[in-house]
Amino acid sequence: MRVLTGIQPSGDLHIGNYFGSIKQMVDAQAENETFAFIANYHAQTSGGKDLSRFTMQAATDFLALGIDPEKSTFWVQSDVKEVLELYWILSSFTPMGLLERAHSYKDKTAKGIAANHSLFSYPVLMAADILLFGSEVVPVGKDQIQHIEIARDIATKFNNEYGDILVLPEFRVQEEVQTVPGIDGQKMSKSYGNVVNIFGEEKKQLKTIKKIVTEQVALEEPKEYETCNVYNMAKLFLEGDNLIALQERYKKGGEGHGHFKIYLAEVMWEYFREFREKREYYENNQNEVREILKAGADKARAVATPMIEKIREVTGIKY
Amino acid sequence: MRVLTGIQPSGDLHIGNYFGSIKQMVDAQAENETFAFIANYHAQTSGGKDLSRFTMQAATDFLALGIDPEKSTFWVQSDVKEVLELYWILSSFTPMGLLERAHSYKDKTAKGIAANHSLFSYPVLMAADILLFGSEVVPVGKDQIQHIEIARDIATKFNNEYGDILVLPEFRVQEEVQTVPGIDGQKMSKSYGNVVNIFGEEKKQLKTIKKIVTEQVALEEPKEYETCNVYNMAKLFLEGDNLIALQERYKKGGEGHGHFKIYLAEVMWEYFREFREKREYYENNQNEVREILKAGADKARAVATPMIEKIREVTGIKY
Repeated sequence: MRVLTGIQPSGDLHIGNYFGSIKQMVDAQAENETFAFIANYHAQTSGGKDLSRFTMQAATDFLALGIDPEKSTFWVQSDVKEVLELYWILSSFTPMGLLERAHSYKDKTAKGIAANHSLFSYPVLMAADILLFGSEVVPVGKDQIQHIEIARDIATKFNNEYGDILVLPEFRVQEEVQTVPGIDGQKMSKSYGNVVNIFGEEKKQLKTIKKIVTEQVALEEPKEYETCNVYNMAKLFLEGDNLIALQERYKKGGEGHGHFKIYLAEVMWEYFREFREKREYYENNQNEVREILKAGADKARAVATPMIEKIREVTGIKY
Repeated sequence: MRVLTGIQPSGDLHIGNYFGSIKQMVDAQAENETFAFIANYHAQTSGGKDLSRFTMQAATDFLALGIDPEKSTFWVQSDVKEVLELYWILSSFTPMGLLERAHSYKDKTAKGIAANHSLFSYPVLMAADILLFGSEVVPVGKDQIQHIEIARDIATKFNNEYGDILVLPEFRVQEEVQTVPGIDGQKMSKSYGNVVNIFGEEKKQLKTIKKIVTEQVALEEPKEYETCNVYNMAKLFLEGDNLIALQERYKKGGEGHGHFKIYLAEVMWEYFREFREKREYYENNQNEVREILKAGADKARAVATPMIEKIREVTGIKY
């Protein structure tokens, strides 16, 4: 199964990103033909400050977190420019009504993001991303289902004209295996300012974890763990006996939330140790990251080229 | 002065095209740095049947009519794909309102052309065409002035963000030196079905010319030439004594409009003789045409490359 994922290069990753989607993506490499690209053209729709740096950061982070360039095809969107040609060509198979009905555009402009043409036409570029590589499955959040439907509509219109050329993609809604709470107990999200980053200095991490909102209970009293934000974050990193041991500490009393926070910081630090070491390696070998990306772009292009050539031929762009 | 012209590959050229714009373009090669491209991506907005064939036909026709690949940079739009990257990048500097106010989109959809995204976003691709090559002047019909203004607006927004990178183009309205009447006396236009093609079989040309609408006047009577569609077409091809001689034949009487039509067919055939021979040569040497286009694309790309590289750098697409 060919599964395609676009990665937004948007800065520091937090543990909500990791448990919400990255881990599943990394695990899925074993059974699927994974295509994963850093969507730097898309990132321009929301204003491209620091884009260059964020692109390298995303590459470094995802390699550290387990994207395996041997198993997956991993590249930067702008390195396979064929996608822009398909984007233009598909535009003639995209009724305006289809884009005008897109929720995401309406939501984003309602939130005050500038109503630029790139934001409006984003679903067409996304369709090109998907269709160029013959993607069969696209894992998405619920808010992105409509974009996959748009890609299917466009592909259907194109195929009606030129025959069975484009593969109709299916969406797969990523049910969040675990909802990751932020330090305020709401869902962890950069826009809520309640995140705990995956990578960062140990002291800073602890400082963030110390800000987790907890109940006021006297030190000696037993404490609720099910409703505790510290526990709910810690259980992402603990299994079996270790998890039960933490529950016992809550039930027993004699320790404050401060102790649990220190423990959370420790287990988290341990959990990401291997990733952190890998990340440090890539951080110190950015040219190797670039080489991996170039090789990934070559792999991606090998799939894109026969597709775009066929499309150039049937549409008469090839002369 | 760098002057850019886009050529629509839309089939047979008629003498209205020639005297209305092609001749001026060819003549202007002497003093200007002419950039002329066959707009095959744009042609897709109006449905791309026969696009491949029309692209080669446009190349053959324009070379025959005097585009000189030594003096001009002459290429096919899709051979310099950098334009699509600039198109995407500029989309983030294109407020939707700018496109929503475009007359051309409204006019075309009102005429029943499908309201597709490519038709809507056409002015952004046109802006990319213009700005990628640092065009200073773009000769346009009156209906296209707004598109140049859109290109200027987009370039200004981009430059406000990233500094003085894009050249703001000026439009130059092509006053039609001579209005060319069609065979029914209306302005010659393919959509009126009243055209006389430049290239075609001699017999067919004569047959078309014989359909020109004229007054009913007895053979022996003198005839009005100023209001005669045959005369008004003939005067495109005649100068000085030859023109006066034709006027005399009208004034004298004794000849019917049929005679004047035969004469028109003759002078027209003679006028385009050299072009026709050149066209036949290129028609029989299509590979030479392809080579000229490839060399033209290389020339165009040499101008586009430093521009797009700068733009990739400032926008952070380069990583």
